[in-house]
Amino acid sequence: MPEAPAEPEFDRDIRLDAAGEGRFALDLAPGWVVGGGVNGGYLLAVVGNALRRTRPQRPDPIVVSAYYLSASLPGRATVTTRVLRDGGSIATMAADLAQDGSARLTALATYGDLAALPSDVRTTAEEPSMPPPEECVPSSMAPPEVLAAAPLLQRFDMRFDPASIGWAVGEPSGNGHLRAWFRLADGRDPDPLSLLMVVDALPPVTFDLGMPGWAPTLELTAHVRAVPAPGWLRVHHATRNLAGGMFEEDCEVWDSAGRLVAQSRQLARQPR
Amino acid sequence: MPEAPAEPEFDRDIRLDAAGEGRFALDLAPGWVVGGGVNGGYLLAVVGNALRRTRPQRPDPIVVSAYYLSASLPGRATVTTRVLRDGGSIATMAADLAQDGSARLTALATYGDLAALPSDVRTTAEEPSMPPPEECVPSSMAPPEVLAAAPLLQRFDMRFDPASIGWAVGEPSGNGHLRAWFRLADGRDPDPLSLLMVVDALPPVTFDLGMPGWAPTLELTAHVRAVPAPGWLRVHHATRNLAGGMFEEDCEVWDSAGRLVAQSRQLARQPR
Repeated sequence: MPEAPAEPEFDRDIRLDAAGEGRFALDLAPGWVVGGGVNGGYLLAVVGNALRRTRPQRPDPIVVSAYYLSASLPGRATVTTRVLRDGGSIATMAADLAQDGSARLTALATYGDLAALPSDVRTTAEEPSMPPPEECVPSSMAPPEVLAAAPLLQRFDMRFDPASIGWAVGEPSGNGHLRAWFRLADGRDPDPLSLLMVVDALPPVTFDLGMPGWAPTLELTAHVRAVPAPGWLRVHHATRNLAGGMFEEDCEVWDSAGRLVAQSRQLARQPR
Repeated sequence: MPEAPAEPEFDRDIRLDAAGEGRFALDLAPGWVVGGGVNGGYLLAVVGNALRRTRPQRPDPIVVSAYYLSASLPGRATVTTRVLRDGGSIATMAADLAQDGSARLTALATYGDLAALPSDVRTTAEEPSMPPPEECVPSSMAPPEVLAAAPLLQRFDMRFDPASIGWAVGEPSGNGHLRAWFRLADGRDPDPLSLLMVVDALPPVTFDLGMPGWAPTLELTAHVRAVPAPGWLRVHHATRNLAGGMFEEDCEVWDSAGRLVAQSRQLARQPR
């Protein structure tokens, strides 16, 4: 008998135990640590999963806004959800993620059924232009000390556009752009929930401005606009307004069919 | 004795009565109606004012995310606020606006002191290029039936860039851009709170795509990045991804000193 295929890492690590009406629990997995805390995109997907469990008839995130209150650590966490309104074809909900009584993240979200939306597309945005994956710079080439400080890199297969990877060799372009091909290392295909993680998976765009160091997210809002096609995603980060110790980071995610499937913007603190 | 100067309309219309710990009440003013409801930017400023009252030592909105749950009407409304975290130099709070027990808007926000932020600016965004106000098309030229359906236009002095006003004469550019000079009609200068209103003051950017009609906001997140200088503001709206019956609308607000003082993005439903 063939072995059952292993559960993908992403699904395993966002799996929740029911803990009462609108209450869920899980262990935040150590594999998603970057620097001193757990990656914000992974947390967003955990919360996104709790919201999906809360209203299974509204399966997909359409827009999610998360405010990060304190750094999350691997280990036990609870997510509590509340339905604020459910009507027409969408539900708006709130969610809070906490550890040991400390609030880590609070979020608002509107969920619906992406597959049921009208099929019209009038996008004027243009796909990021970049060389094919095999001509890009793989994240697996990161130095051992980086891989050790950022276990989450092992979850990903990222291929950076050579034009936006100069920072890795001390030559940032200064343009405020990062572009990479993205897929999960174990080959799990993207879905609306994993897009919530993908929008915060790349290094901070400030790397390309010659500012290494981590950039704590204050707030991140993601719009998920379509169910992504299987295969590679293209992810583009950009910032235009670095001021007052903060910067905005815009992210676009394009699927293998050439559709803009997610847009996000976050406000983050500049690296020290 | 000289007459005391009249209170500006904006300040008068966002004024709140204290109604207990974290509770406020007001009458939503009929002067901010557009189409069938009260303008979402005005509501955002009302909620923003309640949050400022909740934590006076964190006077300015830095980022606010609002989810619109049902159409608001002129008349009595209550705003309830909760402090989720206050530490370092910022506070994160939640707010809910309701009328007659119906939830209208729910929001999350981070407040701080914009004047206390570091003064560094490394913006690569470019100011909207447009003719001077006297060469632009004033909102007062709108047809009487439009002014009647949109009393809020009388609160504003907007001067539209002729290049993005073709829709007013049945010739939308199709580019998905709107640009206008903006000030309050009574001359009240902008401040961080009024910027929350300004980001949702212009007509929907879909007008420029040949889609007249109102576009209900599902979610709007605004970043306020600096205290605006007195005088005219320049406001730029753009959309790039009209799909699945929804579109994103990005807004930039530039002050008279040439600084990018606010950025917002909303997800809205396409006009029917």
